[in-house]
Amino acid sequence: MRVLVTGAAGFIGSHLTEALLAAGHEVVGYDNFSTGQERFLAAALAHPRFTLHRADLLDQAALDAAMAGCEAVFHLAANADVRFGTQHPRRDTEQNIIATQNVLEAMRAQGVRRILFSSTGSVYGEASVFPTPEDAPFPVQTSLYGASKLAGEGLIAAYCEGFGFHGTVFRFVSILGPRYSHGHVFDFARKLLADPTVLPVLGDGRQRKSYLHVEDCVSAMLIAFAAAPAPYAVYNLGQDHWCEVNDSIRWITEEMGLSPRLEYSGGRRGWVGDNPFIFLDCRRIRALGWAPRHSIEASVRETLRWLLANRWILEARA
Amino acid sequence: MRVLVTGAAGFIGSHLTEALLAAGHEVVGYDNFSTGQERFLAAALAHPRFTLHRADLLDQAALDAAMAGCEAVFHLAANADVRFGTQHPRRDTEQNIIATQNVLEAMRAQGVRRILFSSTGSVYGEASVFPTPEDAPFPVQTSLYGASKLAGEGLIAAYCEGFGFHGTVFRFVSILGPRYSHGHVFDFARKLLADPTVLPVLGDGRQRKSYLHVEDCVSAMLIAFAAAPAPYAVYNLGQDHWCEVNDSIRWITEEMGLSPRLEYSGGRRGWVGDNPFIFLDCRRIRALGWAPRHSIEASVRETLRWLLANRWILEARA
Repeated sequence: MRVLVTGAAGFIGSHLTEALLAAGHEVVGYDNFSTGQERFLAAALAHPRFTLHRADLLDQAALDAAMAGCEAVFHLAANADVRFGTQHPRRDTEQNIIATQNVLEAMRAQGVRRILFSSTGSVYGEASVFPTPEDAPFPVQTSLYGASKLAGEGLIAAYCEGFGFHGTVFRFVSILGPRYSHGHVFDFARKLLADPTVLPVLGDGRQRKSYLHVEDCVSAMLIAFAAAPAPYAVYNLGQDHWCEVNDSIRWITEEMGLSPRLEYSGGRRGWVGDNPFIFLDCRRIRALGWAPRHSIEASVRETLRWLLANRWILEARA
Repeated sequence: MRVLVTGAAGFIGSHLTEALLAAGHEVVGYDNFSTGQERFLAAALAHPRFTLHRADLLDQAALDAAMAGCEAVFHLAANADVRFGTQHPRRDTEQNIIATQNVLEAMRAQGVRRILFSSTGSVYGEASVFPTPEDAPFPVQTSLYGASKLAGEGLIAAYCEGFGFHGTVFRFVSILGPRYSHGHVFDFARKLLADPTVLPVLGDGRQRKSYLHVEDCVSAMLIAFAAAPAPYAVYNLGQDHWCEVNDSIRWITEEMGLSPRLEYSGGRRGWVGDNPFIFLDCRRIRALGWAPRHSIEASVRETLRWLLANRWILEARA
């Protein structure tokens, strides 16, 4: 099958691209390289079934051209940094809402009906139920990122109803693994390389986090893609355990052989809009036969080792 | 208090404007007159505490200027026609999502923190719980209109969390009463005036509808405005009873003295995205002391009499 992957040069997109190629699909990659990395696509670019469109999702003509002849779309491109939403309040709207509608309109123009979308556990806001199921009580958004992803989900659902699309939405916890290039493990590694004696920690370090390895994330998406579920289906992707930020600090400093002084900013949240706990009920995707193969600790340690072996990414995302 | 009302020349906006003026507030009306009517503002325009900005919400500079000196915003302007979403898939996004963020950004620029927003019971999609409470299970959108209003709600909630805004969201059922200018009573009246012998009815006429009178809608908004509830609060606004489309057809034809042949298109829905039943649990707004004073039958009959006495609106919205 010919599949378009938006954000193909990103952390998750590049892994998904490789997995789709390995599964025999033809992959059309689409990326504006605003945060994507050419190096992440090294293997794909050498593959005969891969083509790359270097363009922005706000360029509808380029998107329409890339969409031609595709049978399905994995729409992963997004502004994925939940933390800085309030500094650029329109960025999430443009890159996560408008861009998603552009993808849907390109699909409509080209007769493509299947879309798989990377949403986020942030859409649950401050959940009242743990682990949080897909049909949790009507959420209240706590970040522009979450609000923009919720809007993207809503548009996809409306296109499923209105235009007979087939939509699959994945609500991720934070993802770790090789090519990871933003988030707290990244920030900690960069800070410790700059000053190994002290580590500033936002909040009290007790924030609980449930991380998933990128290989497990990609395998879940491929299983749902093959399963062809209901016309519109939502799947949580996460672990059924969690760690505290303090656990990951311990694993990171062990990997680096460091004993920094920890300077907590205090408080229960890392930043405004930081959700103290995203812990998802994943029985729905597990019912399709999926199970994660990497623990949180193994994922954090592997991520850290990858960052130390690929320090160029610390510069590239500075 | 100086209050901005977007959509001030609209059906609900013009009633709200009059009620705010009567309550002693200063009202800055904002409308692009795409569907708003100058005649609806006749009383307001004669009032010394009313000023009108004839501008579009996509004109950020005009919006910033209108916002200056205001202390609260009732954001009612919207593309309110759920039915034709699939013919203009970007219209809801522009007029309901981008426009809402423009309002929020104008507030931020001018130091205004209080926003009250007209959302819709359509955000519940095909609800699984009746009457549907504000914290119903995570909804699946069935229309671009609902999706765009859900996105507007999400942006407002995120601004409350990120910028200390105070947001109040109202999820309406369909509203009836004087100045009503789109929806099924409007369509039926227009069709019967054109041909009194036959009435085409979308669906099977068994669709259940819970209508609220515009006076009851406005009184609920003013009660919530005065009550100053939580930093972010959502209120359903509706009736605790409903009618079928066939009931309203009976009331309409009685008011018009007609006995048309009814031609049903058949099926359970009027159109793609039409929700067969919106019936909201309104205990939360009732707990603030509100109760509707108009029955659905009285509302339909009064609306029909107003339409017959104001046939210019049937031409204006043709």
